[in-house]
Amino acid sequence: MARGFRQKIRQKNTENSGFGSNASGRFINRDGLPNVKRKGVNVFNRLSWYHTMLNLSTIRFLSYLVVAYIVINLCFALIYYLIGVEHLTGIDKSDPLNEFIDVFFFSSQTFTTVGYGRIAPVGFTASLVATFEAFLGLLTFAIATGLFYGRFSRPRAYLRFSDIAVIAPFKDSHALMFRLAPYKNNALTDADVILSTAIEVLENGVPKSNFYSLKVHLSKINTLALNWTVVHEIKEDSPFYGFTEDDFKNTRIEIIVQVRAFDEVFSNTVVQRSSYISAEIVYGAKFTPMYYPDQKDLTTILDLDKINEYQKTDLPATTGNNE
Amino acid sequence: MARGFRQKIRQKNTENSGFGSNASGRFINRDGLPNVKRKGVNVFNRLSWYHTMLNLSTIRFLSYLVVAYIVINLCFALIYYLIGVEHLTGIDKSDPLNEFIDVFFFSSQTFTTVGYGRIAPVGFTASLVATFEAFLGLLTFAIATGLFYGRFSRPRAYLRFSDIAVIAPFKDSHALMFRLAPYKNNALTDADVILSTAIEVLENGVPKSNFYSLKVHLSKINTLALNWTVVHEIKEDSPFYGFTEDDFKNTRIEIIVQVRAFDEVFSNTVVQRSSYISAEIVYGAKFTPMYYPDQKDLTTILDLDKINEYQKTDLPATTGNNE
Amino acid sequence: MARGFRQKIRQKNTENSGFGSNASGRFINRDGLPNVKRKGVNVFNRLSWYHTMLNLSTIRFLSYLVVAYIVINLCFALIYYLIGVEHLTGIDKSDPLNEFIDVFFFSSQTFTTVGYGRIAPVGFTASLVATFEAFLGLLTFAIATGLFYGRFSRPRAYLRFSDIAVIAPFKDSHALMFRLAPYKNNALTDADVILSTAIEVLENGVPKSNFYSLKVHLSKINTLALNWTVVHEIKEDSPFYGFTEDDFKNTRIEIIVQVRAFDEVFSNTVVQRSSYISAEIVYGAKFTPMYYPDQKDLTTILDLDKINEYQKTDLPATTGNNE
Amino acid sequence: MARGFRQKIRQKNTENSGFGSNASGRFINRDGLPNVKRKGVNVFNRLSWYHTMLNLSTIRFLSYLVVAYIVINLCFALIYYLIGVEHLTGIDKSDPLNEFIDVFFFSSQTFTTVGYGRIAPVGFTASLVATFEAFLGLLTFAIATGLFYGRFSRPRAYLRFSDIAVIAPFKDSHALMFRLAPYKNNALTDADVILSTAIEVLENGVPKSNFYSLKVHLSKINTLALNWTVVHEIKEDSPFYGFTEDDFKNTRIEIIVQVRAFDEVFSNTVVQRSSYISAEIVYGAKFTPMYYPDQKDLTTILDLDKINEYQKTDLPATTGNNE
Repeated sequence: MARGFRQKIRQKNTENSGFGSNASGRFINRDGLPNVKRKGVNVFNRLSWYHTMLNLSTIRFLSYLVVAYIVINLCFALIYYLIGVEHLTGIDKSDPLNEFIDVFFFSSQTFTTVGYGRIAPVGFTASLVATFEAFLGLLTFAIATGLFYGRFSRPRAYLRFSDIAVIAPFKDSHALMFRLAPYKNNALTDADVILSTAIEVLENGVPKSNFYSLKVHLSKINTLALNWTVVHEIKEDSPFYGFTEDDFKNTRIEIIVQVRAFDEVFSNTVVQRSSYISAEIVYGAKFTPMYYPDQKDLTTILDLDKINEYQKTDLPATTGNNE
Repeated sequence: MARGFRQKIRQKNTENSGFGSNASGRFINRDGLPNVKRKGVNVFNRLSWYHTMLNLSTIRFLSYLVVAYIVINLCFALIYYLIGVEHLTGIDKSDPLNEFIDVFFFSSQTFTTVGYGRIAPVGFTASLVATFEAFLGLLTFAIATGLFYGRFSRPRAYLRFSDIAVIAPFKDSHALMFRLAPYKNNALTDADVILSTAIEVLENGVPKSNFYSLKVHLSKINTLALNWTVVHEIKEDSPFYGFTEDDFKNTRIEIIVQVRAFDEVFSNTVVQRSSYISAEIVYGAKFTPMYYPDQKDLTTILDLDKINEYQKTDLPATTGNNE
Repeated sequence: MARGFRQKIRQKNTENSGFGSNASGRFINRDGLPNVKRKGVNVFNRLSWYHTMLNLSTIRFLSYLVVAYIVINLCFALIYYLIGVEHLTGIDKSDPLNEFIDVFFFSSQTFTTVGYGRIAPVGFTASLVATFEAFLGLLTFAIATGLFYGRFSRPRAYLRFSDIAVIAPFKDSHALMFRLAPYKNNALTDADVILSTAIEVLENGVPKSNFYSLKVHLSKINTLALNWTVVHEIKEDSPFYGFTEDDFKNTRIEIIVQVRAFDEVFSNTVVQRSSYISAEIVYGAKFTPMYYPDQKDLTTILDLDKINEYQKTDLPATTGNNE
Repeated sequence: MARGFRQKIRQKNTENSGFGSNASGRFINRDGLPNVKRKGVNVFNRLSWYHTMLNLSTIRFLSYLVVAYIVINLCFALIYYLIGVEHLTGIDKSDPLNEFIDVFFFSSQTFTTVGYGRIAPVGFTASLVATFEAFLGLLTFAIATGLFYGRFSRPRAYLRFSDIAVIAPFKDSHALMFRLAPYKNNALTDADVILSTAIEVLENGVPKSNFYSLKVHLSKINTLALNWTVVHEIKEDSPFYGFTEDDFKNTRIEIIVQVRAFDEVFSNTVVQRSSYISAEIVYGAKFTPMYYPDQKDLTTILDLDKINEYQKTDLPATTGNNE
């Protein structure tokens, strides 16, 4: 196949893709992030902790907050304990454990600024630490407020992509298609899609990825309310022109998708990316509809569970096929 | 009418509208949201709670906050009550109801971090719950802070659309017109409008909506300070060319409007959409002016109550009319 | 002059300016806001309170906060007083005024959640009101937090415009010029300027404003670090072509300026507008430089106090002048 | 060299650079800010304190907060002390220093709203001051919350530029190259670069900087995941055409870089600038690769420590060289 395959790819690699051409594995992970690791540079300089906190799952984010809260209070409890419980009023001095428990709760009452006053500092040192702890507590919750807001106000497209792409009949020929749909109650308008592909070829026996941009049939859409089936027609100007089912299976291909839209709630542009590799392309299939009119409510129902539903179909014979 | 009607619509449906062509009812509700319902996918994944909270009316949003506040305090009150009121100082132990009332207020004093201290926890369990409640209280108000900010900083166009569109005389012929005006003290610049329409036709007896984009006469405006009358001239290239008053009445038509502008306070692009259906189009009418100069203050008065005012008028005879 | 003047203005009014053509006074106030008043529509619907709070001066904004704080506490103090001071511990009951003072301070200690506890509620009604007040206090400060952030994070261009425009020699002819400079430590890039003008003419004895866009010589600038002199060359295609000094004085002219730039700190586009009327145009003058190199620090000094400095100069004789 | 040099620079200076042409030193500092100082205008009007607070290092920002906290509490402590410690309960009146210490801590407990109540105000004046201080405390933390959020949510590109640019072989000729790489876990897409240069020439013995824009070979990139080597080919249309190694050394040159990209986490456009002067250009060198495939994890490793690594190389003989 190698010789015939090379002849099929007639385009020049003029795409400035931004990826190394000799990387292995996917270029774009399915979640849309580039498959790249960084080294060198101190880890603290390499991580934007704000980006990190925004990308955490809600469960992990809350767990981190709780753990931080406990650890901070344990530290301050220890400090108060070392200063001496005689500098706090209302401590249960029956035994050291009870003393530590009481200073721990005093710490938490200070950190959260609840300050019941049943336990209160007397004397310079304990008061000074409490003064500092209350200040720290307020700043910590100031940061937490910012993180919460940053997390939930972060503009996201909330698009679900079909798990597979299909090679389906289209007009007189066939096309690569996949589909996507907004799955949340956001309102996206003015969407467009940019499609490119990486195809691995052997150059003097060494695998090398070439990048091509793919034309999309009607690449813009006014309102992204229903599903959107993205269509790349496989014509003479497509790098997949003449590809057989086996070519799609045996070549390392990666389809890289970038969708951009305007979210009316955030009043902001949102971007989501995904990718399809050879194993995720079904040859000779077409998607089945995933929406239908609802006569009772005079509305349209979009059934998101059907996003991956397709049926096998024959492809028309194409010219330019390698026999 | 059917045969003649079909001949009138000569354009191809090349608009990538993003709507299903067989839906019933409006495509765009008057508030600008698409008339689509989603199913499949877990309801929690389908709703963006942040979008939901931002779209609530102020009354409902505040009600939800108050209800949540009461419910959380009732839960914690129950927990303290089960732990035992002997673990709290200052409780009125005259009867169980008074006990519960006191633990409820202790809970609220902890949750808001007001912490008077008249009632205060003693012992490990009650203190631990109070520690957690104060922490939860602060996080809750951190989230509330974010929601309040998200709600009122959300960029919106604050445009009022006229309730009706008119078919009015324009140049030698006639035009479809509607108008809009900013009704708040925001400053919009660089506005543009995109107009499209869905027209229902019968295809083999089945209703089908075709989508057309509509040309707008002067579709951009530098400053959106007064009202803006959007004009679609009904010429040969309009899908409404040759439509009689009856055609406008008896055909299912939907005019879909999208206005985009730059808000100088938010320094952000804002978008607002609306739509007009057949019943909202007045044939043979023109809008009356809604602003006038104020000589005393050397300013211009924009009277928003007049946005729907029009007067009946005759339309010029047009060529291409169906006889 | 009327006849000759009309002949000078040969352009068609094709600008979609968004202003009424028969307004009196300025179209754009010097602060950049349109000179328009709205009526009709309920005042609460007509005002965006968030826009209003953002546009207040810092002094007024803080005053409003303090007044609101006092009023809210007076209201709650009255409620506690009516409930009865016997439901609060630690009240100084020597006389009614002292009682009211104490409930006022109890209210403020609750509203701010400081809750010393020297005065604390006992019994259902007072506790319930206190519970609600602490909740209200936290929400109020949540809103205040949002307003503070909204106020100081609001993207603004911080441009200072020269108070006057000049008609200065330029190349073989002359040009209308004014200048602007960023006066704060923000960093603006990719700036562009849009210039238009309203010129009042008599139409059948009725004054009417025509709008023209004005070409700007080099209307884009990469970095807006020093002052920027905006130049509109008065050539054949300018509506001011052939205007004499008297024409500039006696005609009602308004030059409308819109500057747009990218602020690197906000990572946002910022816009600022201004306008010049006839009385603010100096005929036959040129601006003097307002920056100079500083050899010691190897930097450039921009002297903002010189922004209005100009010197009188002769203009070259122009063709097309009306004699 | 002067005469030959002048002939080399054949382009007209048509760039609207926004820089003074007679400034000394760099135009753009390496951190991307313009090398300009402002004078005139009151310092408070000249500084945007919000921009200033956002540009502070974290250490300085936190230090300012702590200092402000201490100073505010000292001021209020003094006020309470002057009012008289008899208006506060629970003060240790053993000696004036202890009294001052106690009012200081009372102040901090009020400012942070922790309000233990061991020390509490009695009487009108002290209560009034405490009421105001608690209010001020909450507003201060509202502002701090906004500043924290503003600081860490501020969109930044987090690009590292190579310290040096090289003149490297490229195609048949040579090119000026430098490189940049994202060093944090942000995801940049749709990046583009704008390159310009300032070249100092002697005009009648006076140094004068001319500005030229520089063409970039493939100036856009889809995904900025690995390093990006920016290439300006030195062909006939380059102002550096015919420059020898000595020309690069002896001429005052500054290469001004602006990179713009879309950050998917912030959903915002970010911009970063830098510049290279003559001393930072290495003639006859090429960069060595800084990323390599990782076969084990099927990913690509980007080694940020190698960003400045290059090897000396010979340049091909070029036509148009000055003999």
